[in-house]
Formats: sequence, structure tokens, C-alpha cells
Amino acid sequence: MNLNDRAWRRCEQLLEAAADLRVACRHLPHGGRIVDCGVEAAGGLQAGLTLAEICLADLAEVRLVPGRADLWPGPAVQVWTDHPVAACMASQYAGWRISSGGYYAMGSGPMRAACGREELFARLGFRESVTRAVGVLEAAKLPPVEVASEIAEACGVVPGELTLLVARTASLAGTVQVVARTVETCLHKLHEVGFDLRCVQSGYGLAPLPPVAADDLAGIGRTNDAVLYGGEVTLWVRADDGQLEELGPGIPSGSSPDHGEPFGKIFQRYNHDFYRIDPRLFSPAQVTLVNLNSGRAHGFGQLRPEVVQRSFSADG
Amino acid sequence: MNLNDRAWRRCEQLLEAAADLRVACRHLPHGGRIVDCGVEAAGGLQAGLTLAEICLADLAEVRLVPGRADLWPGPAVQVWTDHPVAACMASQYAGWRISSGGYYAMGSGPMRAACGREELFARLGFRESVTRAVGVLEAAKLPPVEVASEIAEACGVVPGELTLLVARTASLAGTVQVVARTVETCLHKLHEVGFDLRCVQSGYGLAPLPPVAADDLAGIGRTNDAVLYGGEVTLWVRADDGQLEELGPGIPSGSSPDHGEPFGKIFQRYNHDFYRIDPRLFSPAQVTLVNLNSGRAHGFGQLRPEVVQRSFSADG
Amino acid sequence: MNLNDRAWRRCEQLLEAAADLRVACRHLPHGGRIVDCGVEAAGGLQAGLTLAEICLADLAEVRLVPGRADLWPGPAVQVWTDHPVAACMASQYAGWRISSGGYYAMGSGPMRAACGREELFARLGFRESVTRAVGVLEAAKLPPVEVASEIAEACGVVPGELTLLVARTASLAGTVQVVARTVETCLHKLHEVGFDLRCVQSGYGLAPLPPVAADDLAGIGRTNDAVLYGGEVTLWVRADDGQLEELGPGIPSGSSPDHGEPFGKIFQRYNHDFYRIDPRLFSPAQVTLVNLNSGRAHGFGQLRPEVVQRSFSADG
Repeated sequence: MNLNDRAWRRCEQLLEAAADLRVACRHLPHGGRIVDCGVEAAGGLQAGLTLAEICLADLAEVRLVPGRADLWPGPAVQVWTDHPVAACMASQYAGWRISSGGYYAMGSGPMRAACGREELFARLGFRESVTRAVGVLEAAKLPPVEVASEIAEACGVVPGELTLLVARTASLAGTVQVVARTVETCLHKLHEVGFDLRCVQSGYGLAPLPPVAADDLAGIGRTNDAVLYGGEVTLWVRADDGQLEELGPGIPSGSSPDHGEPFGKIFQRYNHDFYRIDPRLFSPAQVTLVNLNSGRAHGFGQLRPEVVQRSFSADG
Repeated sequence: MNLNDRAWRRCEQLLEAAADLRVACRHLPHGGRIVDCGVEAAGGLQAGLTLAEICLADLAEVRLVPGRADLWPGPAVQVWTDHPVAACMASQYAGWRISSGGYYAMGSGPMRAACGREELFARLGFRESVTRAVGVLEAAKLPPVEVASEIAEACGVVPGELTLLVARTASLAGTVQVVARTVETCLHKLHEVGFDLRCVQSGYGLAPLPPVAADDLAGIGRTNDAVLYGGEVTLWVRADDGQLEELGPGIPSGSSPDHGEPFGKIFQRYNHDFYRIDPRLFSPAQVTLVNLNSGRAHGFGQLRPEVVQRSFSADG
Repeated sequence: MNLNDRAWRRCEQLLEAAADLRVACRHLPHGGRIVDCGVEAAGGLQAGLTLAEICLADLAEVRLVPGRADLWPGPAVQVWTDHPVAACMASQYAGWRISSGGYYAMGSGPMRAACGREELFARLGFRESVTRAVGVLEAAKLPPVEVASEIAEACGVVPGELTLLVARTASLAGTVQVVARTVETCLHKLHEVGFDLRCVQSGYGLAPLPPVAADDLAGIGRTNDAVLYGGEVTLWVRADDGQLEELGPGIPSGSSPDHGEPFGKIFQRYNHDFYRIDPRLFSPAQVTLVNLNSGRAHGFGQLRPEVVQRSFSADG
């Protein structure tokens, strides 16, 4: 079953439980669907977990678990997968920047693999041809019908065969689904430092659930801090120990000179221009690489509880 | 689907797995059912988790997770819900004191919403009209048929359409289901200090599973201590920060002058008269309120590992 | 439903998801099945969890949960059951040493109860007569058809009614399924020190997931260390407190004079002869016995983080 069909199946289950999950489905004139998980709809913790699993093409398990007491009270978001590249890179990574007619969203989910225009897909050698597509939008507003039609077209499906799930960063579901990106963030960083992702067999990640922010900018800050300073990832890889020791120190967020301050402060320092932030910052705080070829475990980076607390207890 | 129908559906699943869960179903002459989860039946951990979820009208997830090492060895009970008021207040709260013909029980579960006589329901503006009802009894004995009939009548259902699940406090299932009341206890305390519960969107709670006591009195002591000294709750609310800062210090159990000793000692001091105990005591040790309106997190109280250990390692 | 039928039902579910779990099914000429979960097949975390639950006859829950930060980064394996003797002793315990025509494996799973030749089954007073059988092999190679036929014959089933699941210790699934043996290891030790296992009602265990080793010998060392130095178990029993206090100190691994060094070192010291190792070593590091008769909790032993770290960070 392809990534979009897997996600579609989960969407059907989500919609059957729409009232329980406090999500609202809007049927577009052409038959497509917009599922509001946290824009105008209240959403919630379960909506966030399901949204995260759909975004991972139903190839990962996302759960609330007790958070580490020295980081922050309340739950943490745990994610693990035996299909890290398909689930996290071909699907969950927010690589589709949607900007059309004044509408802005970070696009993720398996629709990216159907579209396949990102350079990443060429590098992964992966793309899928689908009859229906599922996408996740991190956005302050629900998309207008024109944007949905453009997305459908880019995915090669008729407009009626598209389901878009939407949540603001500053919503309960939106916060959960972003914090479920520990493994994805780590994989992307590995990719950036030149590691062949096809060597990654399985991944496990954990990060504290930050207080839901009241505005999206603060939400972006805190959800980033959850991963950058409170996130820990273990990857099981087939690689060369020498390469891991060489690349490893560059993987955790601490490898960036921008590391050490809450993300909101860094973002502000660069006048809210993402592209001026050191890309090496975007990675979990602590990374363990288990080399299945040699049986050696390589650990890099460490959690930074004081930055997590500074971020989460600030005005939001 | 109403609360009682949701719980009924879960009862059917529980009964299909009765042997696995070591629970016993007794069919009453008039067709109603008594499900023994831990009185004469052995019950167990799974019976306790399912009992807790039924008591929450199947609107919450209850799981065993690793306990905090500094509190007590073994599992903790984690509960979370996106329907805290319906699940915890209209259903799980043990607000129905059953005392009839020498039979005593603490009644909880969705049958309370069908009966609706408690003042709480008037204040919540909630009640449901049902054709079948499900209740949970924390009791030393299984109820006689007359008590079941009285409960059915109070709920407005024919006796054959009532399912009562019963467990002693001093049983494995009974201990699990009581310790799953962290969020409920916190909500009740919020209600007591004057907070409008309709503002609470979601809740997450965690408390260590105490050693199962041999007698119910000791069991009541330990399960209370699990929450009062080892319980932590996060609530996501829509409120005013000023109000939260004002009411907040009064929410955790530490706000009570009775706080600091194992519950059994306090209970003894008041000659086992519940009503002489300061009601402010009944709350989790640590409470975090995340204000969705402002994005601010407010923390109150703290865990008291030494009281947990004193309670759990005492004779039981 | 008997243990083998329960396990068989889970095998069917596992095989429906074979591609997702990266397991491979080989149909033998006579109709039996060999499911490769981690020999030539990649397997993974989910394959390991499912393998563990099948090995426990589907009478226990096995999950990945956050590991204790002071032990080792990454997940821990949590197991709990209300049927500890049936699940762990009659099924999961690796009591069937398979050695035939140059093929070696540690045999576990419900097929042991169908065979019933181990002295343990006489002592448990348990054996089952089945029409189909399920076994788990911890082995470096997939078994030849002759070995499968011999196993079927020993179980009293026709060769076509046998399913064998196989994983190397040095595989992801193999590591997960061995580390899921905390409760089993504890029960076996209780049995060794003379405790009547029928008194054990429920069990909960937790151990850190070690880095997957590259060779099986190193894998055996690390998975043992996960339990011996990082494993913790709680058992709910019906017993006499005096007996528990008397037997208790002999239960955790620390009761053995061999305790204190990574298992690989100990194994080497005895020239890789298992039978020269003090059998008292094989037990979790920390054991809590909750006596349901008296309500008292008895704790024995403690975790040894430094040995866990020494073991897991060594070459593997």
C-alpha cells in the first residue's frame, strides 16, 4: 500500500471519530476535504497524535508518555518507526512551502511524495503515483478552495481525491504533531551532514510537550525548543564507525553556534528570517546512533533542561 | 453516543475477554449484570485499566507506564482525555454514595449522569436520558439484587439494562482504577475553589501504582497517597491568567493544612470520619495549568516522595 | 483458547503486516512456516514487540517506553501480564534447547507446552494438547526443514501445523524479544529458590533496550546485562511475608557472587560454558514483591547503571 493510501485509511478512521477528537470536516464544492484539527476547531491531544501518525503515513507509532521530570512536568511525545525514511522524510518532513494568493502553510504528509518536486525526492530516489492524496498543513487559517485545487493538481489527483488536515502551531493538536518530529528532524540533519539515509533502519524519539502557545510565533519557538533542547533520538543504522564518529559531533543541535538560547530569541535576532538561522541548529539535543554493522553505540549531544524551562515558562 | 452507551460497548468487550481479565459476570434474575472485577474474582492489571476506562465512559486512555524512580518502583497509572468534564466529572467522580439495607459502595461511572441527582449535575448543566446504564462500585462486597434494582430505578432504566462493575479498593483492579483518578481529583478541586470547569479542554495525569493493600481501609490510604503526594496533573484551560494565579496555589493538595502525613494517619486522627478531613486535601500533589488563551503555563505544588514511600512501605 | 491457538492468531496478524514489519515467511514443502524476524530479514522494533507477545502466547503486553535517563538513552522494553505463569513459564521461557544435525537454537514460545517434556511442566502440572503449534527460535540461522519436522513431531502436530518465528540475538527484533524477558527471568529465579509460582498473580517488568550487537555472543552479553543490571520487576503474589523476607534477598541478580561485571566478561571467565555460571545470576537487578495477602511490599536488589553503561558502550 502506498503512503497516501495508508494515510487515507487513517483519515477515514479519524473522521469516524470526529466528534470525539473535536475535529471538523469541511467538504469542498469539488468533493475534496479539509479536516480542521486545530484552527477553528478545538482539536486536542488525540487529534494531535492521530494527525502525527497520518503525517507519518501510518508507518510510525506516536504516543503520550511521562515526560522527564527534570525537563518539564506533564507528558512527552514518543515516536518510533521501522520505516524512518518513508515515514519521516518522504512524508512527515515539512518540505512543501505553500504560498498562494495570500495563503501560507507549511505542507507535510504523504502528498509531498505524490507531488515529488522537492529536490529531496530526487536524492531519495522515491516518488509515488497516486489516485488520492493526503496532506498536513501547519497554518493559521484553513486553506481556500483554490489552494486545495492547486495542491491536488500538483499531486496529480482530481480535486475530490484530496484530504488536507490543518492545525495551527498554537493549538493542542498542532503542538503535539510538531513535537512528534524528533526522528524526522534528526534524519534531516543526518542528510544535511552528508549521511546516506538509506542506511537508517529504525528510529525512536522523545521530546517534552510544551505548553500550547497563544500565537503561532511563540508556538514555533516552543515546539522547536522541545526538540532542540529537550529532544532525544536513537537511530539504528548500517554504517561505518569511522564515518559515524566523524559526522556524529555535527548532528545534535549543540553543533550549531546558534545553540543555547530559546529559539524565539534566535529567531528575533535574525529578524524572523528563517534562512539566516544556522541550519545546523535544527536537530534533537541528544542523538544516539547504534551501528548494526559493528554493534557500537555512538552518543552525541545532551539535553539542556534550563533552556527548555526558560522557553516553556516564558510568556507564550 | 451517550456516556452510558459508550461504557456499555466497552463492557461488552470486557466480557468477551472475561477469562483473560479474570473477571466474573453474574446475571441477575431480572437480567441485569454484576461484573466482579476484584471482590471474589481475582481481576488484575488489565481488569483495572479497562474498569477505569469504562468508568471514564471510554473517553480517556488509561495505561501502565514506568513510574518515577524517585517515588516508588514499578508502574505508574497514566490517564489522559480530551473530554475531562464529561469523562471525569459526569462519569468517573465517585459522587454516588450507595447505602442500602446494610450494603455500602462508592458509586461512579456514567450511571451517575443517568441518575443526575447530584448537585454537581445541576451545576454542570448536564444529564443524560438513557435506555441502559453502566456503573462502577468500589465496595467490599458484590451488591444484592435489591440494590441493583434501586440503582436501575434511579437511572430510569429497566433492571435488565444495568451493568454494575465492582472491585474492592484492596484488589489489583480496584487499586488501578482509583489511581486513574488524578485528572478527576484535580478537576473536582478546581470546581471546589470556584473555577468554571467548562474552560478545561484536556487533561493528563500520572500517579504511582501503590502496593495493593490487604484491607480496604489501608487501600483507601495508599490510593489517596498515590494521588495526594505522588500525583501530577496537567490541564489545558481557557481562562484568565490573573484568575489562575489567584486560584492556583489553592489547587494542589499541599494547599491543605492536613497535607504532609500519609492519608491513613490523617483519617485515623479524625476517627475515620471523611467529613472532618479538610476537603482541600483531595487533589494531586503537582498541578500545571496551561492557559490556551495566553499561552502561559502555571505550576503549583510538588511531589512528596518521602510521604509516598512512608505510605507504600507501611503495613497494608 | 489454548496458548498455541492464541499465539497462532497473533502470527496471522503478524503475517498480514509482514512487509510493514520487514519479516519474511518461508513456506516449507510440508506446509509449515518459518517466519524470519531477524536472521536474513531486517525485522525491526515492531517485529520484536510482536515476536515477544507471540512468545508470551498473547497473554502479555509488550511496549517501548522511555528508558530511565540514568541508565542509558533511548527506549526501554516494558512487559506486563495477568497470567505470568502461563505466559512466561509455560510459554516464553527459553527452556527448549534445540540441537539437531548441526543446527542450534534456544526454543521458546507455546510449542514448549505442547511438547511438555521439560521437567518444569511436570512441576507446573501444565501441558496442552494441540492441533497446531507456535515456537520462537533464538538462532543464528533459519532451521532446516528436518528440524521443523522434528519439532512438529515433538509437539504432536502434523508438520504443516507448525509456525516457527526466528531471530538472531544480534538483530533488532531479537534484542527486543530477549529484553522483554524481565518478568520471566524473575519468575524462573523464584522457582529456583523454591517459591510456588502458582502464587504469582500478575507481573510488571522494565529493562533498557541495549544497542543491537553485531555478533550473537556480544548480543547475549548485552541483553543479559539489560536484565541483570538494568531490569526491574514487580510481582503481585499471595504468600507469607516471612517466606518472602527469607527468600527475597536470594531473588535479584545481586544475590550471586558472579554479579557485578558485564555478562560477557563472566561468560569469558568460564570459557563460554553457561553451566559453570552461577545460576543465581539470572534475575533482574531489582525486584519488588507485593503480597496481596498482607498488603506488604518487599523490595530487593538495585539497578547498577555503571555496569549497564560499561556493557552497552563496549565494542559489540
